[in-house]
Amino acid sequence: MYFREILGMEVAGERGDSVYLRAFGDYERASLKLTTAAQSGIGHIAYRTHSPEALERRVGVLQANGVAGEWTDGDLGHGAAYSFHDPDGHRFELFYESERYQVPPELRPALKNQPHRYPGRGVGVRHLDHVNFLAVDPAEDRVFLEQNLGLRLTEQIVLDDGTEAGVWLASNQKSYDVTYTRDQTRTRGRLHHVAFFVDQREDVLRGADIFLEHGIVMESGPHKHAIQQTFFLYTWEPGGNRIEICAGGFLIFAPDHEPVVWSQAERAKGQAWGMQTVASFHIKGSPPVPEEDVLLAAHGR
Amino acid sequence: MYFREILGMEVAGERGDSVYLRAFGDYERASLKLTTAAQSGIGHIAYRTHSPEALERRVGVLQANGVAGEWTDGDLGHGAAYSFHDPDGHRFELFYESERYQVPPELRPALKNQPHRYPGRGVGVRHLDHVNFLAVDPAEDRVFLEQNLGLRLTEQIVLDDGTEAGVWLASNQKSYDVTYTRDQTRTRGRLHHVAFFVDQREDVLRGADIFLEHGIVMESGPHKHAIQQTFFLYTWEPGGNRIEICAGGFLIFAPDHEPVVWSQAERAKGQAWGMQTVASFHIKGSPPVPEEDVLLAAHGR
Amino acid sequence: MYFREILGMEVAGERGDSVYLRAFGDYERASLKLTTAAQSGIGHIAYRTHSPEALERRVGVLQANGVAGEWTDGDLGHGAAYSFHDPDGHRFELFYESERYQVPPELRPALKNQPHRYPGRGVGVRHLDHVNFLAVDPAEDRVFLEQNLGLRLTEQIVLDDGTEAGVWLASNQKSYDVTYTRDQTRTRGRLHHVAFFVDQREDVLRGADIFLEHGIVMESGPHKHAIQQTFFLYTWEPGGNRIEICAGGFLIFAPDHEPVVWSQAERAKGQAWGMQTVASFHIKGSPPVPEEDVLLAAHGR
Amino acid sequence: MYFREILGMEVAGERGDSVYLRAFGDYERASLKLTTAAQSGIGHIAYRTHSPEALERRVGVLQANGVAGEWTDGDLGHGAAYSFHDPDGHRFELFYESERYQVPPELRPALKNQPHRYPGRGVGVRHLDHVNFLAVDPAEDRVFLEQNLGLRLTEQIVLDDGTEAGVWLASNQKSYDVTYTRDQTRTRGRLHHVAFFVDQREDVLRGADIFLEHGIVMESGPHKHAIQQTFFLYTWEPGGNRIEICAGGFLIFAPDHEPVVWSQAERAKGQAWGMQTVASFHIKGSPPVPEEDVLLAAHGR
Repeated sequence: MYFREILGMEVAGERGDSVYLRAFGDYERASLKLTTAAQSGIGHIAYRTHSPEALERRVGVLQANGVAGEWTDGDLGHGAAYSFHDPDGHRFELFYESERYQVPPELRPALKNQPHRYPGRGVGVRHLDHVNFLAVDPAEDRVFLEQNLGLRLTEQIVLDDGTEAGVWLASNQKSYDVTYTRDQTRTRGRLHHVAFFVDQREDVLRGADIFLEHGIVMESGPHKHAIQQTFFLYTWEPGGNRIEICAGGFLIFAPDHEPVVWSQAERAKGQAWGMQTVASFHIKGSPPVPEEDVLLAAHGR
Repeated sequence: MYFREILGMEVAGERGDSVYLRAFGDYERASLKLTTAAQSGIGHIAYRTHSPEALERRVGVLQANGVAGEWTDGDLGHGAAYSFHDPDGHRFELFYESERYQVPPELRPALKNQPHRYPGRGVGVRHLDHVNFLAVDPAEDRVFLEQNLGLRLTEQIVLDDGTEAGVWLASNQKSYDVTYTRDQTRTRGRLHHVAFFVDQREDVLRGADIFLEHGIVMESGPHKHAIQQTFFLYTWEPGGNRIEICAGGFLIFAPDHEPVVWSQAERAKGQAWGMQTVASFHIKGSPPVPEEDVLLAAHGR
Repeated sequence: MYFREILGMEVAGERGDSVYLRAFGDYERASLKLTTAAQSGIGHIAYRTHSPEALERRVGVLQANGVAGEWTDGDLGHGAAYSFHDPDGHRFELFYESERYQVPPELRPALKNQPHRYPGRGVGVRHLDHVNFLAVDPAEDRVFLEQNLGLRLTEQIVLDDGTEAGVWLASNQKSYDVTYTRDQTRTRGRLHHVAFFVDQREDVLRGADIFLEHGIVMESGPHKHAIQQTFFLYTWEPGGNRIEICAGGFLIFAPDHEPVVWSQAERAKGQAWGMQTVASFHIKGSPPVPEEDVLLAAHGR
Repeated sequence: MYFREILGMEVAGERGDSVYLRAFGDYERASLKLTTAAQSGIGHIAYRTHSPEALERRVGVLQANGVAGEWTDGDLGHGAAYSFHDPDGHRFELFYESERYQVPPELRPALKNQPHRYPGRGVGVRHLDHVNFLAVDPAEDRVFLEQNLGLRLTEQIVLDDGTEAGVWLASNQKSYDVTYTRDQTRTRGRLHHVAFFVDQREDVLRGADIFLEHGIVMESGPHKHAIQQTFFLYTWEPGGNRIEICAGGFLIFAPDHEPVVWSQAERAKGQAWGMQTVASFHIKGSPPVPEEDVLLAAHGR
């Protein structure tokens, strides 16, 4: 299985037609929920709030702003959650009560400051890093998350006509944890990728060797993004979603950090050390839509 | 010069008998102030607050707690600062107004999300990472910083007799930025080391090659600490202070993180992948004191 | 200067309109000769023989096989050389007398088993690794080098029609030191690239950061070739020649090693962890020829 | 099992009370033979000759020099071998006929120039790298191997009294494949360590993480040796032999390479980037002898 054998994650539990997974550095019980489905794509993203009060405060803001939402009973690993959708149609959840991971004896780490032992199997991802949604209008989602969740814009792409082609948002020192880039097929609610973090750039390179041995399709990388300076490798998991393995990047220490704005001309220079990424990277999402093929054909593929 | 040629830092300015330096990822004008002095040691550590209001709030707390302190006019790169001492006698400053680094044309980076260009010279440190003070009683300083600055304990060493032999404190997601470890000579106000961050463990290894070529004394490392999992290399700069080059470690995402407590027995297992570090690492600080030689002799050196 | 400041090489001497360079691990005085010229391209490649007797033996074989050639007086760093051309028109030299590098005090290494100190400047290449020629018919050159120099074929690309599209030849345990790939413009005597070795894949990644900061065009990589498993990065030096920075690969220990043959279908799978390299990589050489533009246009560029 | 699960080797076969193992880059069927025994230590080292003629030639030299020896029928993976002992009493074998590894479908690599797939399990060693014997008088063994096997001395330690405390010998471009260092217990025929190669220094660091998780004792490293510049990590396998994981080093391209001689004073400076290695590293071998404890006690352990 891609997530367990190749990425090196562990199964944290099963419920209904879902299996829950975790990486060795995730402090909560589970970080990824895989559900049997007719097509690929992302079900929801869940953010844990800083405190029970913060959860109440955020729900209050959402309600005051007229955002439709509802409380759910929670899920394996976390308690009651407030569910709502961003303007592009992706489902979000907010919760505070979280089941701290209890390590079984066979996964007990040598170093007690680590949730479970380093797998020594496959890529060995440390933790869930970020989610990149596709959106018809990333600016709309940016404003929504700034106003309702208090997220902070750290970098963005602004085209010559003023369109925001991409926005990177952070909740804290980590320079982003949710991203929206433009869906060129103009479909709502799709996923670009989910990313898992590894400690070293060399782990990404070793990951490429492992993906190659397992016949996993790599789409782009290993390379370093200009935006956010993340060192990346994009693969397609067997269920049809794009998964990034990432390393590096940097923290933002400035409390008064101003968003870095990339212009259309700067983007045209190439994202990866000045080199271009493949057309499919800018077009394909999950679930797939027929418009992708039209766009890919226009790019000569 | 050690800091410029070997670490790869840039000179940010000079004033009086001080020279100010910065690393390529430091967003403020300067991160290190070197002052001509009769002996080694640390003059002060300065923390930037999150906002002007936070600065006022902290000064209010210090005053309410009866901590002696005074306002200073600021320094090259930052505005008015409030100066006080921790119980062990190290001087702290708090400020908010900070001069954002203005990059000169010759240091302009290829990637605009980086303060200045990657030096491609020497070790290439990215930013000031943390300061490790020595203290007669680390617990006393821990309580002081928790109560007055709102710092959070993330890891600590507690000996069998209850003594806190080391404390690691954080202000945010980065798992520590100030540390106190016990001064075995029982002298107050000394420094153990100042640390600079590099992006990859491999940069630390390459750093060791560079230090060797320049005849810089390396004391310990490259190895991985059990505590905080930092990958480290300790050197002595020509002025007589211990400088760490570090990489790796991890972020703390749990808002309800509980401090990791290392017992005397766990510490005795060895800090570096289960191996021992040299005795001088646990004894020497700056400025040097005669008691160090007595202790080193007792360890057979 | 690209070679000195960016690659981290040293100037080994100057003579006439040529400057000679060396990398820190090159045991001979110089490994690269740069000559002022009206156009880019490679002047010659020089092989040192294993002994004076081997030199005589090789010249005898060349003469017996009717290959035109002549003795020259040598060059800066080496003695008398026998000069001849391969069937595609590249000039070769063979020599034995070589000036062992005498390190000046300022470049004396900390470790005496290293010719000069690690530069700690730029990419820090260790030694000249290999030369990749373009040829109208690589098979013709392969047979020539096997028969006249006793080189050994280690890997090759054989298309469905039997054409050898690429040949990799070795003189010893290192798995190749000279390569011929097909010149799609059908021009004779051109260069594809010259490669310099670095110790770690991470040095190649760091090299990409350095090239980016210096505005050096990177064409392809960092990636791992399927053939020979070399980890690579291709750049264009200001003089118009393609320079590879490489790491990794493997040694050949089998005295009865059989060449690895890559079929057309295998090549079509993509060279770099299953991904494609850019069209220019397969078309451009030095000196440039007008046919390149026609071919590039056909690839949609 | 240490070799299979932790180092990532594969079982190549079993015969009698021996199990044979191989690493993913070993081109022969097996590179390591583990035999049930009452004590630790090395049974023999086997060298493959360059050709059948070379085998005959070497046996002829041994016999002409009056070295006692005998032909054996071979072993799993190789044909008839000539067996003899070096002056210190270690058993050697020479053979030519070798069974080239036939990869089973489940281990077929993605890249056909690699014997079997990269394991993605444990440390992931590429090939057997070298053997380091202990000897009462390394010089005696050096002369023996130079004269009888034609090996070449590449580096050595010569003490002030002329004693050779260590000798490194090579058969080709790889800078050593057999080493003798002085047995301070003055016991004959012991082993210091067997070493396996990994591709990157980062693999050694990752290896340390994996050994720690498995409770494997690490004795020294990860560090870089001054001699040969090998990046190393020494562990003790459960059977009681020291195993090195190594990376880096360099090739020797000079046909007229002169041995690098390290003096007593140079050695005293510390081997690992100028730092000292632990006393046990210089004293312990396998099988263990009581004299080790006496020497260790004298070093304060």
